Amino acid sequence: MHQPPDRSGARSLDPHLSRYAARAEGMTASEVRALFAVASRPEVVSLAGGMPNLAALPLDSLSQQMASIVAEEGMTALQYGSAHGVPQLREQICEVMALEGVHGHPDDLVVTVGSQMALDLVTRIFCDPGDVVLAEGPSYVGALGTFASYQADVRHVAMDEQGLVPAALEEAIAAVRAAGKRVKFLYTIPNFQNPAGVTLAVPRRAEILDICLRHDVLVIEDNPYGLLGFDGQIYPALRSMDRDNVIYLGSFSKTFASGLRVGWALAPHAVREKLVLAAESAALCPPTLNQLVVSRYLATHDWKGQIKSFQTMYRERRDALLAGLEQHMPPGCTWTRPDGGFFVWLTVPEGVDTKAMQPRAVTARVAYVPGTGFYADGFGSRQMRLSFCYPPPERITEGVRRLASVLAEELELLRTFGPTARRAMSGAQAPSPDTA
Amino acid sequence: MHQPPDRSGARSLDPHLSRYAARAEGMTASEVRALFAVASRPEVVSLAGGMPNLAALPLDSLSQQMASIVAEEGMTALQYGSAHGVPQLREQICEVMALEGVHGHPDDLVVTVGSQMALDLVTRIFCDPGDVVLAEGPSYVGALGTFASYQADVRHVAMDEQGLVPAALEEAIAAVRAAGKRVKFLYTIPNFQNPAGVTLAVPRRAEILDICLRHDVLVIEDNPYGLLGFDGQIYPALRSMDRDNVIYLGSFSKTFASGLRVGWALAPHAVREKLVLAAESAALCPPTLNQLVVSRYLATHDWKGQIKSFQTMYRERRDALLAGLEQHMPPGCTWTRPDGGFFVWLTVPEGVDTKAMQPRAVTARVAYVPGTGFYADGFGSRQMRLSFCYPPPERITEGVRRLASVLAEELELLRTFGPTARRAMSGAQAPSPDTA
Repeated sequence: MHQPPDRSGARSLDPHLSRYAARAEGMTASEVRALFAVASRPEVVSLAGGMPNLAALPLDSLSQQMASIVAEEGMTALQYGSAHGVPQLREQICEVMALEGVHGHPDDLVVTVGSQMALDLVTRIFCDPGDVVLAEGPSYVGALGTFASYQADVRHVAMDEQGLVPAALEEAIAAVRAAGKRVKFLYTIPNFQNPAGVTLAVPRRAEILDICLRHDVLVIEDNPYGLLGFDGQIYPALRSMDRDNVIYLGSFSKTFASGLRVGWALAPHAVREKLVLAAESAALCPPTLNQLVVSRYLATHDWKGQIKSFQTMYRERRDALLAGLEQHMPPGCTWTRPDGGFFVWLTVPEGVDTKAMQPRAVTARVAYVPGTGFYADGFGSRQMRLSFCYPPPERITEGVRRLASVLAEELELLRTFGPTARRAMSGAQAPSPDTA
Repeated sequence: MHQPPDRSGARSLDPHLSRYAARAEGMTASEVRALFAVASRPEVVSLAGGMPNLAALPLDSLSQQMASIVAEEGMTALQYGSAHGVPQLREQICEVMALEGVHGHPDDLVVTVGSQMALDLVTRIFCDPGDVVLAEGPSYVGALGTFASYQADVRHVAMDEQGLVPAALEEAIAAVRAAGKRVKFLYTIPNFQNPAGVTLAVPRRAEILDICLRHDVLVIEDNPYGLLGFDGQIYPALRSMDRDNVIYLGSFSKTFASGLRVGWALAPHAVREKLVLAAESAALCPPTLNQLVVSRYLATHDWKGQIKSFQTMYRERRDALLAGLEQHMPPGCTWTRPDGGFFVWLTVPEGVDTKAMQPRAVTARVAYVPGTGFYADGFGSRQMRLSFCYPPPERITEGVRRLASVLAEELELLRTFGPTARRAMSGAQAPSPDTA
């Protein structure tokens, strides 16, 4: 049998190793993903996943609509479409964005296979290997994966409870410039951020946009949770304040149904043309059927009412999580208090390593995502993301109780043996400083 | 208003021009795409598009199935899935591939958003900028777009009526080696090739695989048409003869419904792991709903019978096209005679430039795709692709009649004014040599 030349010393593991592109080295399984297998066991309370809760969806009427679409428009629904997306859906998406003050033209919008694909295409057309991308610290794990797969150099910018810190953004840009590199864009999730749960304060929005404009830094605004504010509040999108220097990414994954994989990018016209070309070479076109399903849903359902019921459901879960944390967490823990979205960001006392603690948490039947997965640079070892989107309130309460016990044991061990012994026992890395 | 620095001289067209990645330069609209707008006017007989004809699909029963899926499995169908794909569908796809002698394990298969995405992911994990990809000359326009978007260097390998020429493959590999470059893979469509309509002869298959193995060249086998042989013949897949050095790409776009965008890659195990990671960063997961629709279709419909009726329909259309060409084409034209798939490849007499002639053909209400779109190197100016998949037989006959008139006029002009005058009039480039 033929064997390619062994340049790696690891031929027995993968005979194709010498063939991969340089970018393939950055493709490693995320910590979130590795966790899902254990976290999905029924006895475990999963505060790990970011899966929306679909129980509130009107399945019967959706089922009937799906049938009508295929019966009435089957020849369109089952046929190739354009890479740009179904025109009617693009118009409807513009109406959805208008709720956030965005006035976009349907021509400047590209429908994608979830907003993940929109992010992939944006990175594809803008990032050469080594180009710098700025992102909040912490940031969405899926975005970090995409940036890594294009060999972008991610630098984190600190957040506080008001979101991205303008002075930190200025500093980060200056530091990159000083090193002779170029910032291609700022990637930001302004509303109910994943994973931090914080929202960029409205007065800061203009400030952040101004800094980016002055330094010739494009802004990628990722906004999957914007309509999930628990008091019905809707923040003005960054795109509503700057149409020329912002690319807006949106999604129906959290406001309707993630399994349809319908997202979009709204971009300045010339960029949109590049996005369509990139989309064509990536997947020819997004599935037509799925676009028609979303289009008909928007046209015939009370989708705003549906979002209201999602808000109510997620607010109850957020309340259960915050109440549980308040009641059970040992002293020295701090956490964010999101007013929308899916996530709370928890910081544990010094000496505790959330990644090292994770197996013990799963043994105690509770799962979370350790903070390091949300940083490109190893920070986050004292943090974890807690999702309140999926389990019902009483399970969330029970999950927090279990998590608090594990943490209490961990702290007890620390007091007894000191942090050195603890780290040696767990085999984990030393805790790192953290900017978030 | 802020303006980024003008390094390009084209700021007025696109203020973002200085920001794009180097790879974005390779992203230009394909000739096929530019043509679709005019070719889709109802008075035009389009022999241009590659859209499958879905008229034979059982829409009523599909409609009922779609309704049941959402009613019975809605919480799964509308939820995120894994980037790997729905397990049951992966098993069923293995059964489909078994018809071509492929014995793959469901674990080694990744479900993708059409096989276009599978091709994108394969290129992403293997191709660094400048890496050489070998492809038949001519080759699938969508693959050339993907290769360009990863800055791969495409070299064409000649075909004859038996498909890829082994000696030409040896030569191409040697030439690349001599120039100090590396061939990353051979991209081939062995059955009813797009656009040439030829099939790789069975005795040549082992020969091609052996050459690739000897020279450490991976094989990407793209097989969307393999089950559409007009006499029900099924050729053994390259993957059936070499499981370690072939990645097989498949699709339901031509055998079921293109608008669902369900395709796949079957790869050696280690490569499959990389593909799943790449798929995750590209689009998180393929739409769950679409996978369940295909899975249920395969489980409950007579899908083999459906493919037989597709074969019958496409055979009649192929017959109409070949009969029309026989009857109407002026002397000096040659064409391929496909025994499956969607396409005939036509070569016109010397002096005629198919791209220059295209506007006159559209004026005469017939559309085709000029040959140059199927080459990365400007060849193909004396060729065109004729698709027989979409229009009914009588329209195909009429289309060929119109095409023959345009060609006759073109030849008349050539005889009167000579090729120099003709080229000056049309503004097109001089005809290039052609290897196909």
